[in-house]
Amino acid sequence: VRLAILGLGLIGGSIARAVRERAPGEPGDGWSIAAWSPSGVGPAAAAAAGAIDAAPANMAETVVGADLVVLAAPPLACLGMLDALASPEVRLDDAVLTDVASTKEAIVARATDRGLPFVGGHPMAGSDRSGWAAASADLFADRPWVVAPLPDAPAEAVERVEALARRCGAVPVRMAAADHDRAVAAVSHLPLLLSVALVEAVGAGADREDVLRLAASGWRDMTRLAHGDVEMSTGIAATNARNLAGRVREARVALDQWIEELEREGGPDIDSLRERFVTVRDALAGD
Amino acid sequence: VRLAILGLGLIGGSIARAVRERAPGEPGDGWSIAAWSPSGVGPAAAAAAGAIDAAPANMAETVVGADLVVLAAPPLACLGMLDALASPEVRLDDAVLTDVASTKEAIVARATDRGLPFVGGHPMAGSDRSGWAAASADLFADRPWVVAPLPDAPAEAVERVEALARRCGAVPVRMAAADHDRAVAAVSHLPLLLSVALVEAVGAGADREDVLRLAASGWRDMTRLAHGDVEMSTGIAATNARNLAGRVREARVALDQWIEELEREGGPDIDSLRERFVTVRDALAGD
Repeated sequence: VRLAILGLGLIGGSIARAVRERAPGEPGDGWSIAAWSPSGVGPAAAAAAGAIDAAPANMAETVVGADLVVLAAPPLACLGMLDALASPEVRLDDAVLTDVASTKEAIVARATDRGLPFVGGHPMAGSDRSGWAAASADLFADRPWVVAPLPDAPAEAVERVEALARRCGAVPVRMAAADHDRAVAAVSHLPLLLSVALVEAVGAGADREDVLRLAASGWRDMTRLAHGDVEMSTGIAATNARNLAGRVREARVALDQWIEELEREGGPDIDSLRERFVTVRDALAGD
Repeated sequence: VRLAILGLGLIGGSIARAVRERAPGEPGDGWSIAAWSPSGVGPAAAAAAGAIDAAPANMAETVVGADLVVLAAPPLACLGMLDALASPEVRLDDAVLTDVASTKEAIVARATDRGLPFVGGHPMAGSDRSGWAAASADLFADRPWVVAPLPDAPAEAVERVEALARRCGAVPVRMAAADHDRAVAAVSHLPLLLSVALVEAVGAGADREDVLRLAASGWRDMTRLAHGDVEMSTGIAATNARNLAGRVREARVALDQWIEELEREGGPDIDSLRERFVTVRDALAGD
């Protein structure tokens, strides 16, 4: 398999490392990797470390002769890459294109518009860290890797993407792009916005310094997502806006009910408070 | 110092272990520990392990002759303990009372009502785990330990509580009870309610199963607090309701602004989204 990776940060780099390192009994087993990134930093380091076979100077050279092209960039950058790959100067031959971005509908729609042979992908894995230096061959081990083909995608194209997911140690999960985006709005993008809203609600106050010196592990856990990569967060909000707005509205309903509980005339009802916390704990019991 | 600990879970147990283990060069250096808990489970295990000197059968016996009595229980249980300790059958002699609960105003007010010699306390440390089995001598190391005395508290009483905090490796931070409650509403109790609201918004949906199979580390981080001890959460909401409601209202304002961004006519403005994420990332830069 001739693999081309466009973008060699945490996710693209971990794909390269996983493909190279996770089948140690099979050196030269038929996978070759070319990688390109806008800065060139990751590909240069990866080539020097022997983790990829080639680090061509541009996107067009990188995809020449590839069987599978992975767009390993945040959502908005993926849209730009699809536009670039649709240019007549780029030779894709019989390559299948896939991506790893956090949202799928907008990207699949753009690829369709451009007439590109595309199967959407989203490995459900991440890290606090970013960049090639943080890449790990085990990042995807036993994690779901969503594969979102168009209804008319050739089975062989879908199979190429699923083979990559399995080669990386992940478990392919086939889902329609729209279903994916609704699900991640709940489980991944709403958490991001709640983390951000927490910082906005607390961090902007005049008493910020007094408050933060009492911060403990709860604060750190709840603000970790707000520390994340700005381009990724921006792309998520921009390309999953409608689903995300719906989920934020649901969280607002829950918070309104909490305000009602806390401001109840005559003081909070302890049994009612307890019941809400018990319900939530029980809902989490299977997680 | 004759120390009495009422409640021997994670926090009370870690105080016992820290007092006993953190000055290894000074065995028998004048600290003795008696502990009691409603179930008796922790004290029995601690006595068997040699971590405390005595596990009397009830609260009254446990505090006899004590210099310092630590109420190591959730907020509502602390209120009940103060009522019990105010009974004429309990001999407190010249003991100073303190606590470790997450809120201070309601507890300090109750102690004042009961005429008890009380200095509020709150070590800013915790764990996912609970109970004596999770207790650790290092839980408080280098952590802030809020000490909230009444304005007319004798200096010697405050000093007894601060000496315990230092003995546990913590850093005493003197604060008025009202200031403490305002600060923790922001940095600790609002995060709890956002974690709970996330589960309420997502976990109750008909698509719960589909959604949760895509859960990754962000979901786990953001729901960890919602997994917490129900009695602690209930006591926090009940005894810090006014401050907490104010902070929830601020988070709601932030979420309303996000809904506006996401539902902007003609689609989200990418520069405006990016600016919000950058502002939040920069606000966190010092954390």
